[in-house]
Amino acid sequence: MKTLVIVAHPKIDDSTTQQFLKQGVEQVDAKWHHLDSLKTFDKNKERQLLLRADRIIFQFPLYWYSAPASLKRWEDEVLSSNFVYGDGQYNLADKEFGLVVTTGMPDHSFKTGEAENFSLDEILTPYRALAMRAHMKILPLFAINQFYYMEETAQMQLLMDYERYLTQPYPDSLKKRSQWYFAQFNNYKFKNNVDVLKSAFEQSNLDLDELHSTLKMIKQGEDDSLE
Amino acid sequence: MKTLVIVAHPKIDDSTTQQFLKQGVEQVDAKWHHLDSLKTFDKNKERQLLLRADRIIFQFPLYWYSAPASLKRWEDEVLSSNFVYGDGQYNLADKEFGLVVTTGMPDHSFKTGEAENFSLDEILTPYRALAMRAHMKILPLFAINQFYYMEETAQMQLLMDYERYLTQPYPDSLKKRSQWYFAQFNNYKFKNNVDVLKSAFEQSNLDLDELHSTLKMIKQGEDDSLE
Repeated sequence: MKTLVIVAHPKIDDSTTQQFLKQGVEQVDAKWHHLDSLKTFDKNKERQLLLRADRIIFQFPLYWYSAPASLKRWEDEVLSSNFVYGDGQYNLADKEFGLVVTTGMPDHSFKTGEAENFSLDEILTPYRALAMRAHMKILPLFAINQFYYMEETAQMQLLMDYERYLTQPYPDSLKKRSQWYFAQFNNYKFKNNVDVLKSAFEQSNLDLDELHSTLKMIKQGEDDSLE
Repeated sequence: MKTLVIVAHPKIDDSTTQQFLKQGVEQVDAKWHHLDSLKTFDKNKERQLLLRADRIIFQFPLYWYSAPASLKRWEDEVLSSNFVYGDGQYNLADKEFGLVVTTGMPDHSFKTGEAENFSLDEILTPYRALAMRAHMKILPLFAINQFYYMEETAQMQLLMDYERYLTQPYPDSLKKRSQWYFAQFNNYKFKNNVDVLKSAFEQSNLDLDELHSTLKMIKQGEDDSLE
């Protein structure tokens, strides 16, 4: 699977979060495509990149409830309606579409009555509307809030989750997750992350145990109700 | 009242709709501020324009469920968080905020299951979120769908509604509307629009009659329920 990560950030060298995520892109089968570092772009080359990808990610910091202007400029120039849905030909149909959005606010601020008043899903409606118009498959949002407050272990876990978001088959499931982790074990680049992998596995096992006992209880309940 | 109309459109000379709306701005106490025709802008001058306005309108054609890139670039550069809400000082607080959005799609396409899948209110969440963050008062959206299919009378009616949107006190009411129309009668510029005004008045009177009879019925109902 080929993943294209379209990154919009006007000052990417100063962004610890973006530099951190870039490591993740380099560890998996994904292409980092930073828009602000292109002085101009060729519409047709950009479209070729899109056509070759199976999964397309828009990645950006949230500026005024939207991507930086560079992404919008790219959308306005590259995505003609003719390319996206003209004459009933949907060139991006069935590709997967994901959003990686970083914010400086805590999770809880994204709800009615809190500082940001809207959920990230509500705020990002324009991108979902675009993906739907293009007949793409929408992945759940990957949000990163206040990266700089995270402890190192949490950051390493985030990196693994990010790499899964770029390359693991979706919809997510315990099975697909385990398969993905197994595949990564064979990847020498991950050697340094063995501890994180181990704890992820332990968590998976706990989840499994919990699922089993929940199922057992449900079954018990159903049996009881039949009596 | 001073109204600032911030217009984003990359090819404004080719836009019949924008040229038409520009006439409206020229007839009332409002300033037309077209971003794409500024090669660069001075952050501080832009902020002064905002500070001097009582009502701020963002006006644009909907490109991929959002404004053209020029507006986003302006937002990213002019609206620092420090200017908008820094240190608890809300420089734009209590100003009115409106959106004039033109689209090439019919009204009914903006709902779940139709071509655009989302309502315009949902799509425009980022602007509402910005206005709420700035402690501004939000006016209802002014949407213009498929302007080019409108008959001339409908276009003239639209122009009057647009001018009201720029200058009439809100929330809208029959009384405020009538007062606004009366004030415009004294404005010689409107001479050519007397027919439209007349039909607007007739409509107002019909609305009033209907309201009176509705009220009468409600009152009747209440009296009955007391028996």
